[in-house]
Amino acid sequence: MTASNSVLVSAPGKVILFGEHAVVHQKYAVAASLGLRTHLYIERTQDGICTLELSDVGVSRHWPLSSFPWDAVRDEKEGDHPIKDMDAGLKTRLVELAGDFANDAQEQALMAFFYLVMSLATPLKERTGFKISTRSFLPVGAGLGSSASYSVVLATALLIVFDYIPVDFASSANSASYFETINRYAFKAEQVIHGNPSGVDNAVAAFGGAKTFLKGKGFSTLEGFQSLRLLLTNTKVPRSTNALVAGVARRKEKYPEVIDPILTAIDGVSLRCKNAFLDLQNGTKDATSLITELEELVDINHCLLYALGVSHPSLEKIRSITGDHGLASKLTGAGGGGCAVTVIRDEVDQATIDTVMALLGKEGFDCYQTSVGGPGVRAVNIDANEDLAWMSRVDMETLEQKFL
Amino acid sequence: MTASNSVLVSAPGKVILFGEHAVVHQKYAVAASLGLRTHLYIERTQDGICTLELSDVGVSRHWPLSSFPWDAVRDEKEGDHPIKDMDAGLKTRLVELAGDFANDAQEQALMAFFYLVMSLATPLKERTGFKISTRSFLPVGAGLGSSASYSVVLATALLIVFDYIPVDFASSANSASYFETINRYAFKAEQVIHGNPSGVDNAVAAFGGAKTFLKGKGFSTLEGFQSLRLLLTNTKVPRSTNALVAGVARRKEKYPEVIDPILTAIDGVSLRCKNAFLDLQNGTKDATSLITELEELVDINHCLLYALGVSHPSLEKIRSITGDHGLASKLTGAGGGGCAVTVIRDEVDQATIDTVMALLGKEGFDCYQTSVGGPGVRAVNIDANEDLAWMSRVDMETLEQKFL
Repeated sequence: MTASNSVLVSAPGKVILFGEHAVVHQKYAVAASLGLRTHLYIERTQDGICTLELSDVGVSRHWPLSSFPWDAVRDEKEGDHPIKDMDAGLKTRLVELAGDFANDAQEQALMAFFYLVMSLATPLKERTGFKISTRSFLPVGAGLGSSASYSVVLATALLIVFDYIPVDFASSANSASYFETINRYAFKAEQVIHGNPSGVDNAVAAFGGAKTFLKGKGFSTLEGFQSLRLLLTNTKVPRSTNALVAGVARRKEKYPEVIDPILTAIDGVSLRCKNAFLDLQNGTKDATSLITELEELVDINHCLLYALGVSHPSLEKIRSITGDHGLASKLTGAGGGGCAVTVIRDEVDQATIDTVMALLGKEGFDCYQTSVGGPGVRAVNIDANEDLAWMSRVDMETLEQKFL
Repeated sequence: MTASNSVLVSAPGKVILFGEHAVVHQKYAVAASLGLRTHLYIERTQDGICTLELSDVGVSRHWPLSSFPWDAVRDEKEGDHPIKDMDAGLKTRLVELAGDFANDAQEQALMAFFYLVMSLATPLKERTGFKISTRSFLPVGAGLGSSASYSVVLATALLIVFDYIPVDFASSANSASYFETINRYAFKAEQVIHGNPSGVDNAVAAFGGAKTFLKGKGFSTLEGFQSLRLLLTNTKVPRSTNALVAGVARRKEKYPEVIDPILTAIDGVSLRCKNAFLDLQNGTKDATSLITELEELVDINHCLLYALGVSHPSLEKIRSITGDHGLASKLTGAGGGGCAVTVIRDEVDQATIDTVMALLGKEGFDCYQTSVGGPGVRAVNIDANEDLAWMSRVDMETLEQKFL
């Protein structure tokens, strides 16, 4: 934070491209970064006050850093390592610090924030303070990794403001180590929010690109993954992920001779996707063949999820509308409503995309023209003279594009 | 034909309930009789003339039986056995006898008729003649076994008129043997029509009920199968069965790790259906559980066919409309258009069925309320005083119901 007192940070959301539900039953899944990002503005102050504006969850609060329960963690803060766990004693103290909150989303966001501040700040040595404001393009609770995206931008901003990493970490010679540090803190914040997250959401938000994931075996980078154009459509149909996962488990128990091979087929889809990008990287497959293959895999994977009982009329409507225009779609995430992704080949013109988006909009769906597999977390210094603290999310993105 | 000179014969069509396409790749399929039937009226005469009226394919012809090329087969006609093969010499003579025909359907129907007459008639010993008129409720070329149904009623009528089997064959002590005889001749007629049929269509039309079928291993009766209410919807979307089968083969070759387990899953669906009826027969499953299971299997099997690439927007529309009313549907046969079946549970009331049929009709589809798994071929003597020869198909069915 030597060059500037104001930094913009942004990190992508994530979509599951292949393997949702099957991943619960020890099959491969593929997750990729989503072009819809969470943006964070941080401004250093010298008043010892930290201010937090989370417009998307309705939080606007500030606290003296000295009011944090440092006595509960001071012994644990050795070196640069975060506090190991959010133990019950610390949690009670932080809930007291938070005061009233309106809902779970506010509580989770505040606790993750507190956790990261307590892990990274050094309030007793200086009068450092900061203002943070975030805005996200990611719908909350839609399976698009909004909390991981938040955890990553928050961890990155605090790592920068407390001088653990430089603003230009992404282009630095030590970038690999910096990204690992960001991801490690973001994962800790995700644990505070979710209890037992897989870690794939924060890894995608931090590193970008795509990851293959196998339950119990963790995740690894999908080598050669190329950014792709994508429509993301949110049906806004509410659903219970737990109920949908339980429904698949029941169907598997009732029809093992049918469902087990379906899960094997989905595993085949995910591995096929992985191999397709490797083939592209090795020059044994061209980009046109790759996108055709991805479209076919998207189509097949959706039908297999439909066979598992997790589609919904709204999702079939999306498939019908996009299919009428030659585009392949699948549900992403839990299904039963929620979101769908539509692959957009290079040669699809904007007029077609606009027509499809208008038709989807008429059905009451929110539709975003974006991409998958783009960059992970990025930060940029901005001119301190511009008053950016409380700008709209659109202004923030415009500004970021100007600087990045 | 001692009790009457006039007999009505009818035989069902068939639907594939489970396993279409997978059956091409050595997986089990389940076929069942369809309540839509082909009806045949036969009247014995003493003028040595045979008259054939096939309204559905536009044939109205008559020939002296003495004009048939008996010299080409006389040596082969030992006992009651049919001529073994339609050899090239005989075929040429029969094509000459047929004279002009307008299309393949007419040619196939005439050649099958000639084949059966040459196998069963004894024209040189008597002055027997007959008039035959057929009408079918089965759309031609829709994968509903219309030719097998025709072959079965034709073989049955000729077996009756030439005194090989009694009119009441179905209720006779020797019924098993009579059904086998009918099926054997019908299969020969199917070979004339199709070249290399599997034999499952004529077996279902002859015996009724349901059959499991495995390529290369033949078919066997699905024990315990119970007649079920069904909507049959014909999208009337034309498609090429060969192109659809080839498309699945291509997809299997390109994505073996995905498609092979899908075919295994479909095999599981067919076997599960078979076992469900066995469980019903054994009393280990009740009718409500059975129909719920069939609905789930119908739903899953359709989605797996969708994953193989053989659905069509018209078929998804049917699934959407029936699904909105809590009814499960799947494509039947080749897909890509063609027909769909919708299972109707006992508790579904007629108002719901009427609503669904009206909605399907609005889409331009032909929709039939019928059943699967009902009886096979049946015959009944009718009063010779009634002039029934050229009546409409509706009259014919009304009459049959009056007598059966």
